[in-house]
Amino acid sequence: MPDPATTPEPPYYAVIFTSVRTPADPAGYEAMAERMVELARQQPGFLGVESARGADGRGITVSYWESESSIRQWREHAEHLVAQQRGRSEWYAKFELRIARVERAYGLGS
Amino acid sequence: MPDPATTPEPPYYAVIFTSVRTPADPAGYEAMAERMVELARQQPGFLGVESARGADGRGITVSYWESESSIRQWREHAEHLVAQQRGRSEWYAKFELRIARVERAYGLGS
Repeated sequence: MPDPATTPEPPYYAVIFTSVRTPADPAGYEAMAERMVELARQQPGFLGVESARGADGRGITVSYWESESSIRQWREHAEHLVAQQRGRSEWYAKFELRIARVERAYGLGS
Repeated sequence: MPDPATTPEPPYYAVIFTSVRTPADPAGYEAMAERMVELARQQPGFLGVESARGADGRGITVSYWESESSIRQWREHAEHLVAQQRGRSEWYAKFELRIARVERAYGLGS
């Protein structure tokens, strides 16, 4: 996954998903995480995604979207709903999800 | 650093900093990164910070702030300006910085 993501001029939306993994089912988790990125890329309004997880099990994934309605549609996607359910019951000890409107952006080397 | 950060009810602001490290000076970088977190915590309007970096050198740090003016003050802090300069010249191959207004948030287990 290219990182940082290439995104258009603001405004657009970011979903900031911060999580702490349980020790459960690393292979199943990894497969589902890859599948969700693949599926997200196919959704209308998807702009990009960035992800990092440290050795301590703490991770941050930020996905970028054209609009709040594209985020809502993705949240309600049938296969994504199944993944969300397994995330809550098995894979995540904690998470926090924040929806934010990107107002300004600048970078180096991209 | 506790992760996810405990933040108040939205709205508030997020600075999403995505970076790819150069191989240069890991010890110096680590010391400066810790110092910047320590210093950020002392700034007016600081709400919290979350950080993850994978083994591939890709990292995401999200800091949370009460207002855009608190973000601006932190960006212009003298010691932080020195760190930003070294980041551009030495430590980062690429980065992208995005300033976003958090509109909604929910979580699990926090």
